Amino acid sequence: MDLTKIKGPSFLKELTEKELNDLAKDIRQFIIESVSQTGGHLSSNLGIVELTIALHYVFNSPEDKIFFDVGHQCYVHKILTGRAKDFTHLRKFNGLSGFQKRCESKHDVWEAGHSSTALSAAVAMAIARDLNKESFSIVPVVGDGAIVGGESLEALNHLGSINNKVILILNDNQMSISKSIGGMNNFLNNVRMSNTYNKMKDDYRSILQHGKLGEGVYKATKYIKDFVKRGFINDTIFEDFGIDYLGPVDGHNIVELIRVLQLAQKNKKSVVVHVVTEKGKGYSFAENDQEGKWHGTPPFNVKNGRVLSSGNPSKKSWSEIISDQVLQWMKIDKDIVSITPAMIKGSAMNTLFKVFPERCFDVGIAEEHALTFTAGLSISQKKPFISVYSSFLQRAYDQINHDIARMDLPCLCSIDRAGIVGEDGPTHHGVFDVSILSPIPNIVLFAPKDARELRQFVNTAFHNFNKPYFIRIPRGSIDDIKVDYNNQLELGTWTIESCKDDYKMTLICYGDNVEKIKTIIKIKHLNIRIINARFIKPIDEDMVHKIFTENDKPILVYETILKTGSLGSILLTYCNEKHILRTFEHIALADHYSKQGSVQEIYDDEKIDLDTVINKCEELTNGKKEN
Amino acid sequence: MDLTKIKGPSFLKELTEKELNDLAKDIRQFIIESVSQTGGHLSSNLGIVELTIALHYVFNSPEDKIFFDVGHQCYVHKILTGRAKDFTHLRKFNGLSGFQKRCESKHDVWEAGHSSTALSAAVAMAIARDLNKESFSIVPVVGDGAIVGGESLEALNHLGSINNKVILILNDNQMSISKSIGGMNNFLNNVRMSNTYNKMKDDYRSILQHGKLGEGVYKATKYIKDFVKRGFINDTIFEDFGIDYLGPVDGHNIVELIRVLQLAQKNKKSVVVHVVTEKGKGYSFAENDQEGKWHGTPPFNVKNGRVLSSGNPSKKSWSEIISDQVLQWMKIDKDIVSITPAMIKGSAMNTLFKVFPERCFDVGIAEEHALTFTAGLSISQKKPFISVYSSFLQRAYDQINHDIARMDLPCLCSIDRAGIVGEDGPTHHGVFDVSILSPIPNIVLFAPKDARELRQFVNTAFHNFNKPYFIRIPRGSIDDIKVDYNNQLELGTWTIESCKDDYKMTLICYGDNVEKIKTIIKIKHLNIRIINARFIKPIDEDMVHKIFTENDKPILVYETILKTGSLGSILLTYCNEKHILRTFEHIALADHYSKQGSVQEIYDDEKIDLDTVINKCEELTNGKKEN
Repeated sequence: MDLTKIKGPSFLKELTEKELNDLAKDIRQFIIESVSQTGGHLSSNLGIVELTIALHYVFNSPEDKIFFDVGHQCYVHKILTGRAKDFTHLRKFNGLSGFQKRCESKHDVWEAGHSSTALSAAVAMAIARDLNKESFSIVPVVGDGAIVGGESLEALNHLGSINNKVILILNDNQMSISKSIGGMNNFLNNVRMSNTYNKMKDDYRSILQHGKLGEGVYKATKYIKDFVKRGFINDTIFEDFGIDYLGPVDGHNIVELIRVLQLAQKNKKSVVVHVVTEKGKGYSFAENDQEGKWHGTPPFNVKNGRVLSSGNPSKKSWSEIISDQVLQWMKIDKDIVSITPAMIKGSAMNTLFKVFPERCFDVGIAEEHALTFTAGLSISQKKPFISVYSSFLQRAYDQINHDIARMDLPCLCSIDRAGIVGEDGPTHHGVFDVSILSPIPNIVLFAPKDARELRQFVNTAFHNFNKPYFIRIPRGSIDDIKVDYNNQLELGTWTIESCKDDYKMTLICYGDNVEKIKTIIKIKHLNIRIINARFIKPIDEDMVHKIFTENDKPILVYETILKTGSLGSILLTYCNEKHILRTFEHIALADHYSKQGSVQEIYDDEKIDLDTVINKCEELTNGKKEN
Repeated sequence: MDLTKIKGPSFLKELTEKELNDLAKDIRQFIIESVSQTGGHLSSNLGIVELTIALHYVFNSPEDKIFFDVGHQCYVHKILTGRAKDFTHLRKFNGLSGFQKRCESKHDVWEAGHSSTALSAAVAMAIARDLNKESFSIVPVVGDGAIVGGESLEALNHLGSINNKVILILNDNQMSISKSIGGMNNFLNNVRMSNTYNKMKDDYRSILQHGKLGEGVYKATKYIKDFVKRGFINDTIFEDFGIDYLGPVDGHNIVELIRVLQLAQKNKKSVVVHVVTEKGKGYSFAENDQEGKWHGTPPFNVKNGRVLSSGNPSKKSWSEIISDQVLQWMKIDKDIVSITPAMIKGSAMNTLFKVFPERCFDVGIAEEHALTFTAGLSISQKKPFISVYSSFLQRAYDQINHDIARMDLPCLCSIDRAGIVGEDGPTHHGVFDVSILSPIPNIVLFAPKDARELRQFVNTAFHNFNKPYFIRIPRGSIDDIKVDYNNQLELGTWTIESCKDDYKMTLICYGDNVEKIKTIIKIKHLNIRIINARFIKPIDEDMVHKIFTENDKPILVYETILKTGSLGSILLTYCNEKHILRTFEHIALADHYSKQGSVQEIYDDEKIDLDTVINKCEELTNGKKEN
């Protein structure tokens, strides 16, 4: 069918089993075609086609609240709620969000982008509903990776102690982004392997032979009751928490799914419906993916599965470069260990895990544990390297503060995807890390301008492993530059990158902005002194003092993070402390959440793009008489 | 015995059962006497006397790592490791810490103050030990309140998937700070009630009849094995996570405890030892405490249990005043709901819970869930009020940012214990909240100078319930001032508190510092204009602009939080933005963690005390010629 004609999910109720299955096929094809052109989250959405159809068949959105933990697996939901036509602009500037978005549709009742929040919200919605004496269903869909995030477990614990009903759909694809880990996973695995699953399938078949879809429910009620008694509801970890359990059920059999969801709908108490799905289902390349390559993908050729790369193959990602330098170090220092919270692929740590499986640890989607675990390793005389995305590091703020920095424990933490990340949008922009980390005592915070500085800093950290070292690296790729492991840099020093004696102004920046600025300054023949403020903490006080006192040439501080709590505010605090009377121009993000889109589009939108910087420089130098 | 003579725990191994029990009695008496004089954590330490003795009897600290989650229940451990003599200075400035402290003793291998970190650290220590091919035991002690903190559950999940052994002591006193809640608690309750417990006690007795303490272990081995097979190890939630389980065991029977710990010591795999203890054991007032009154206590009269209050009974705590104002509002607006993460007593919410049990929610030690739960209530058209201690709010940074502020969801959050808190020390000082909250878009951050402003702000928030409102209130008490619920204040406005036309300088401060400064200025007859900068976000731009441009009289900004990310840096950013060339004096905390002690001692130590402020004012006004 023409999916773009769908206005809302109510049409589903009229469809036959065959029509539902045909629809699933159409949706799957649509998603593959669409994502192959725009890029986006593929595997999780292919895995959830039948489940989402069944959810909208059984429940009545938006009265009933269907929502997805994290939210990147909501494409089918978006299609069924009338947004297929917008998929041409998926994840584009001012286009369809890759996540649920309340302003997009009344069917999007919750928003996220970070994991493990849906069940907390669901518990709240259930309590609010019952206080208001309403009776709709609340149906959060949570993956097996996200259910073991601490916050999910806190919410599960709360849910187990109250009488407010939530129908928790456990979407068990045996993967979070890469393979799931942990005791819970072992447990789920045992359940998957148990006879119950096969037995249930047989039983369902016999139910189906007795009743036409959508009619048979009442006839089958007694049968189902017996079926439940016969062991369909198991003694599970969820029941230990006080929550009923249904499953496991085949997540690609719409009829089975409808049956079990109707059962859950009728259940008096909160219930977990354990649905076993296959990530990437229906697209062979994604089905066979163990690494998470097809979790989020750029545009690709549907036929051969090859990524349509616009990137330069001679460049390497920042993540790859830091991992490579850590790899060199792991070879010569057996005390170095590496940690990731479920981001082996995203943080380019595959090789580390392959070469040193004993010394590399994927702790699952569990940022809090990951950072305290890092502290625990450090206290045990190990030298931990951990890589976390900037926006996910926010989830472990207290662990960094209370567990690592307060005890001044040595570690090396890569803050990956620092800065504006692009299409993932506001939940993923890494624009808060400087503001939260720089006030924390003992921390060293570094932003390399290129591969050389990145590798030098890793060397410096491991040669002087006595502080909590944080290094922020952006998304994207650069030219790699190898350096010997003895090649270090001096802690707390900035560098002057480009300067003639008669320079007209000073521009202070850091990270990947340094090279970008240097390039454009050269093209534009601007006589500007560029400062690489690579240490955000501690700042290079000697150089700062000199810059702000030696003459009154204009100063511009350029950052691509939020202005409040930025390097600029640290410089102002320093100058005020030293009674230095100076102001400077400051380009940085204003006090709001940035949109989704290409990095360039967001930079333009926020007026932090290079043109804005150059215009400001020209304005400052033209308007200024030189001595 | 004379506990101050104890040098280390090795003497325990020589004691008989009777001597161990006598020692327990002595320790309990010592703790009651000692805490009655210094104040401190009482109930949890009385509950853990026999358990700590048994731990040090069975294991060899510091080779074996015994440590306590949160850490305030470490008094017995401190006594047994040679620190009884220091209890006269418990929690005092430069005195014994109320928590484990690595610099105090080699027996303190981990530090905390916030909940639910011990198991993460333990997993790391176990992995490090096994990488180093060492063989000591790792024995974290975690309470039943802390085990359901998300981070504990993340670590439990990790532990279940690895072969590195940890002996997790679950100290189940059926209370965290106040009564435990949640599905896990129901589960533990079921286990407690089961026959196993009583059966085990009987079986233990018969073990004991067959062997002398300390010798009988090997004789009993076969017996124990059978015993285990016979159901001692149950099918529990921990086993679902893949971890063995022993218990429940009577936490006040030293002999039973020793047996079960020896069993755990011999177990090949990670094991949970479920110990049932009674909080406050041996001191009747504390035993009967359901509210958590004896969790942390000021000095008290041992005989009658009455607190030796140094406070002024006519004053009310900030927490009581905000709760009271919220109570008034809950009476007139049935959509208002209240939330606490296990801090009913500390946040003075008892009355709220008593009057509106259906609309008040204690979610347990689960700050992440608490804040997203708040978001979920808000999205469901409820009006949530939540109270969290400043230093614990750090644990929910991302939930505030990603779930509340990003969606701009209305709520009222009380940041309790903001600022230097005193004796609890570095883990508890609420000195980071301004730096982490002020860069977050959409947030309103307010600090009232007195009870009137506090109540007015609550009124303002509920009358205009369309933003995430945060209000920071300190520890301590003030004169209460009642105001009608229609009495509001204008958002984003500051006030001039005291000013003559010929004032010599301006002093900007906020919160409880305003009245303190006003009082001392009056006493000292200083002609200073005092600004109440009550809105930290948004600041009163009109007034700021005027203050910084209307004349060149000196300006002093006085804050009792960390300087980086403070109001001062926000003012500097504003001035820089507006090209206002001004510097000011800035008194605030330097870039390090503050000590424990009385608030006054810490203020003196940090040079943020009133004398320092006055001296600075005198220096500024004397050195300055007026026009």
